[in-house]
Amino acid sequence: MEHQRLSSGSRWRGKPIRCRAAVSRKAGEPLVLEEILVAPPMPHEVRIRIICTSLCHSDITFWKMKDFPAIFPRILGHEAVGVVESVGEDVNEVSEGDTVIPTFMPECGECVDCKSTKSHLCTKLPFKLSPFMPRHETSRFTDLNGEVLYHFLFVSSFAEYTVVDIAHVTKIDPAIPPNRACLLGCGVSTGVGAAWKTANVEKGSTVAIFGLGSIGLAVAEGARLCGATRIIGVDVNPDKFEIGICILSEELDLTFVREKLCIHVNVLSAKNIDLIVLFLITTGKKLGLTDFVNAATCENKSASQVIIEMTGGGADYCFECVGLASLVQEAYACSRKGWGKTIVLGVDKPGSRVSLPSSDILHSGKTLMGSLFGGLKPKSDIPALINRYMDKELQLDEFVTNEVRFEDINKAFDLLIEGQCLRCVIYMSNE
Amino acid sequence: MEHQRLSSGSRWRGKPIRCRAAVSRKAGEPLVLEEILVAPPMPHEVRIRIICTSLCHSDITFWKMKDFPAIFPRILGHEAVGVVESVGEDVNEVSEGDTVIPTFMPECGECVDCKSTKSHLCTKLPFKLSPFMPRHETSRFTDLNGEVLYHFLFVSSFAEYTVVDIAHVTKIDPAIPPNRACLLGCGVSTGVGAAWKTANVEKGSTVAIFGLGSIGLAVAEGARLCGATRIIGVDVNPDKFEIGICILSEELDLTFVREKLCIHVNVLSAKNIDLIVLFLITTGKKLGLTDFVNAATCENKSASQVIIEMTGGGADYCFECVGLASLVQEAYACSRKGWGKTIVLGVDKPGSRVSLPSSDILHSGKTLMGSLFGGLKPKSDIPALINRYMDKELQLDEFVTNEVRFEDINKAFDLLIEGQCLRCVIYMSNE
Repeated sequence: MEHQRLSSGSRWRGKPIRCRAAVSRKAGEPLVLEEILVAPPMPHEVRIRIICTSLCHSDITFWKMKDFPAIFPRILGHEAVGVVESVGEDVNEVSEGDTVIPTFMPECGECVDCKSTKSHLCTKLPFKLSPFMPRHETSRFTDLNGEVLYHFLFVSSFAEYTVVDIAHVTKIDPAIPPNRACLLGCGVSTGVGAAWKTANVEKGSTVAIFGLGSIGLAVAEGARLCGATRIIGVDVNPDKFEIGICILSEELDLTFVREKLCIHVNVLSAKNIDLIVLFLITTGKKLGLTDFVNAATCENKSASQVIIEMTGGGADYCFECVGLASLVQEAYACSRKGWGKTIVLGVDKPGSRVSLPSSDILHSGKTLMGSLFGGLKPKSDIPALINRYMDKELQLDEFVTNEVRFEDINKAFDLLIEGQCLRCVIYMSNE
Repeated sequence: MEHQRLSSGSRWRGKPIRCRAAVSRKAGEPLVLEEILVAPPMPHEVRIRIICTSLCHSDITFWKMKDFPAIFPRILGHEAVGVVESVGEDVNEVSEGDTVIPTFMPECGECVDCKSTKSHLCTKLPFKLSPFMPRHETSRFTDLNGEVLYHFLFVSSFAEYTVVDIAHVTKIDPAIPPNRACLLGCGVSTGVGAAWKTANVEKGSTVAIFGLGSIGLAVAEGARLCGATRIIGVDVNPDKFEIGICILSEELDLTFVREKLCIHVNVLSAKNIDLIVLFLITTGKKLGLTDFVNAATCENKSASQVIIEMTGGGADYCFECVGLASLVQEAYACSRKGWGKTIVLGVDKPGSRVSLPSSDILHSGKTLMGSLFGGLKPKSDIPALINRYMDKELQLDEFVTNEVRFEDINKAFDLLIEGQCLRCVIYMSNE
């Protein structure tokens, strides 16, 4: 196996690179670590050596999915950081050796949307679920038998090298550790951005978050940065909260908590500690959560009813971070009349629809909106997030619960599927 | 019959008033003009002599409706202007002789919503479909047999006298002609406010309006005042446009228009004149419409497809002014990705639901919101609209297409049901 090492210039410039990739060959089956060929970048494209990548739920969704828009064999992965190995023609924005984050979200910088402050949805290279490069509509990957391997979300970071369109590449300050930088490629940026850019959470406001995976907790972090004073987390999965057990095990008062859990637990109160909320008392609390509603144990009441009671009328901002139409409806139901905003971040299955009562839409004064990539423009907003991390304002460290070598990438899948981790960082090199 | 005449003080103060009312006794049957008794106002209430009232589609909706929330016998009507006859205890805001507009929309002025700039949905006396007074939950109307007559939308203006809670009363400058003032009690305020307050239409933007009744045309007027440069009206009813025939009949070029009508008609072009669009060329154009889409004749294309093509991607603001979930979906579909807002003004039948594709919500950057009473706070915003009318900025005259005497109120129903009018003003007195 020949590995690329960058010095003053890439010795592979203009030639295919042979390197390792974790190929998704069949729906739901373990990725296959194999050697592939990565073609040189075409005009407006950049070939990137991936340093590390993290696993996002959307990777799992498309790995499990049997039918269109799933396609196989494919190189998944879309949260990563890397170094530019070589650039195609007409690429002036980055040079060999630059540290970059590839994103599924484009920013051409030229179209009416990219130039507008109101939109972040590039018109020139609109986001779509394509198995190819966005501009040239072909693949840069083949296996050693010559079979085409498909791209994923214009990133395909589960390979030592990938090719990404320049519109999907953000140059960053190399000072940020790569295992933090990669998080900003999708999930954490989406959550923080949804609170910061899409909702524009007001200081002193109340926030409800449905789904406490990385995206939901990133919403909490974004809301915390915006100055929200009450941040309520809603989830149904007790397992995921066990991560914090080792940290706070001396303060358990289980009887009290079990009685209270059907209503809600205020994580600011030291008495309200159970296995289920331990994670929130540690990581969640640090990321801004002040209250927790376990939707699975709200007897005779919906989560929205519980939140309406807790808040005296509903939350100012409700974020759906799971991808379930029914949960969007719950979030909408408990957003505050008059000014409540419901922001959808979760990716639901194809064809699903959100159904809202017409009279609620008319009479409630509520707003429904979506937040793709947190409403962020990658090239301007990711560097801003990195600055806030370097200034110790934005917290990223808490999201990395696991780290594995590239060879163990399937373990990362197991951990996320079982709800045992937030972000698992996968290191491409063993250095 | 004894009619009240106000001078320095009401001689009926504290006593019931016997006067005429048009009572809706059975769903869908002509209103019965009869004498009734109107009790004196209780604390926080105001008894008002109605000068004139106009007919809104919601009156017809509840007049036709057989089951709950419809109720009979009832005094309908909720767009009106009148003079304060007497006030109950604890009313300091208005005095006998003041000219006022009663509104279905309350503004207590004390609750968190009334004090907030973000909400106009009063929490103290929340809007609901009640057959009684909002604060004391009883009726002030009886017929001469002692039977209770129910209130409608806290206004009940199809009577010579009515009683309204002070939270639902706005004092106005008596200089505005009453047959213009009454329009601001519901429909025109709702439409203008939806563009002005709810959507906050930006200068130079593109607007699409589904449904060109009074509310839709009032949206056009509001959008015109906000500086929208393209205002597209969508409707299916050719009859309603015949009103303008007499004015512009010399310029017809029907052959050309019939060919073009399946796509759209630009009402700024003098050539594009048909019977169907004559109304728009006159009233509609004056109120800001620049284009017309006849949804009934868009062969093989939905109105949303036509609008997306016309605008090169969708309208910045889409207003649904009919009250059909399917039309809300059409409006959402043709709002501009990235920043498009869909604003719902139409009152759909009870139980109806709006269904939107989850992926559109997440990926489109669009916003869905409702606009009850145009997002206006009656006591502060109605006087502002009156000032703009008196300053010849806001156009109201165009909305009054018919006027009838109180005895002929059923004729107003016929006209509106047949789509032959915008607003028909009903004069309570024959003076």
